[in-house]
Amino acid sequence: MPTVYITAPPEAADELADRLVEERLAACVNRLATTSTYRWDGEIHHDDEEVLLAKTTDEAYDDLVTRVREVHPYDVPCIERFDESDVLDSFAEWRAESVE
Amino acid sequence: MPTVYITAPPEAADELADRLVEERLAACVNRLATTSTYRWDGEIHHDDEEVLLAKTTDEAYDDLVTRVREVHPYDVPCIERFDESDVLDSFAEWRAESVE
Amino acid sequence: MPTVYITAPPEAADELADRLVEERLAACVNRLATTSTYRWDGEIHHDDEEVLLAKTTDEAYDDLVTRVREVHPYDVPCIERFDESDVLDSFAEWRAESVE
Repeated sequence: MPTVYITAPPEAADELADRLVEERLAACVNRLATTSTYRWDGEIHHDDEEVLLAKTTDEAYDDLVTRVREVHPYDVPCIERFDESDVLDSFAEWRAESVE
Repeated sequence: MPTVYITAPPEAADELADRLVEERLAACVNRLATTSTYRWDGEIHHDDEEVLLAKTTDEAYDDLVTRVREVHPYDVPCIERFDESDVLDSFAEWRAESVE
Repeated sequence: MPTVYITAPPEAADELADRLVEERLAACVNRLATTSTYRWDGEIHHDDEEVLLAKTTDEAYDDLVTRVREVHPYDVPCIERFDESDVLDSFAEWRAESVE
């Protein structure tokens, strides 16, 4: 099953997480505070952001990515898919039911 | 080698991490503060939790999952396995020795 | 594309992240505060550390690992590779351009 790794500014993370769960695109979202280091226009930047780890299903993955792109404030957001090689059966069932 | 992704309430995370390391089911556990968004009984909830990333081995994985289920306060805990595609040799050796 | 999972003491994490981005070994680094639980010399330890998630490319991966080993304060640092099964096209392009 896919975990989708998304970064967002703190002021957008709350609404993004709520929307993904409300619209049944993710069963749950774990949000973690992060400092992001990157280069832009030749300068090193440090931004306070949040990492969102959205727990979803194969079937819902494409729709989740489409929705994040629509509502995310960045033109080029970090959206990455990591696949678990195992998930506890009862938790996998809950995830699947939650995004149906 | 597997990294096991577990979420737990903050008051249970400390003991859970200690137990996995003390019982040689994980070489180390990285704990990170998180806010979890999910739906339960039709309502959106936001809980303060911790993400535990337990570094273990193929051989110890099943026993680790069994132990987490025994001591975790939730009936349906988030327990997920992510496999690394590479690990620094010396760190992999330390992990293997630590869970023997 | 690889995400490299590195842990480091907080006083070294800032310079490590900057260096990887400045030297174009990573497009960006997300730093997250963590508490690490592990056994050393028969005792359980709890250290405040940071998790660094370095977003890089297949081509730059080996050089990044070499550089982390050179500058990391630990003899046996946690350096692990996780491969994404999908990355948003525009973000993947930005990552590739940033480490060229």
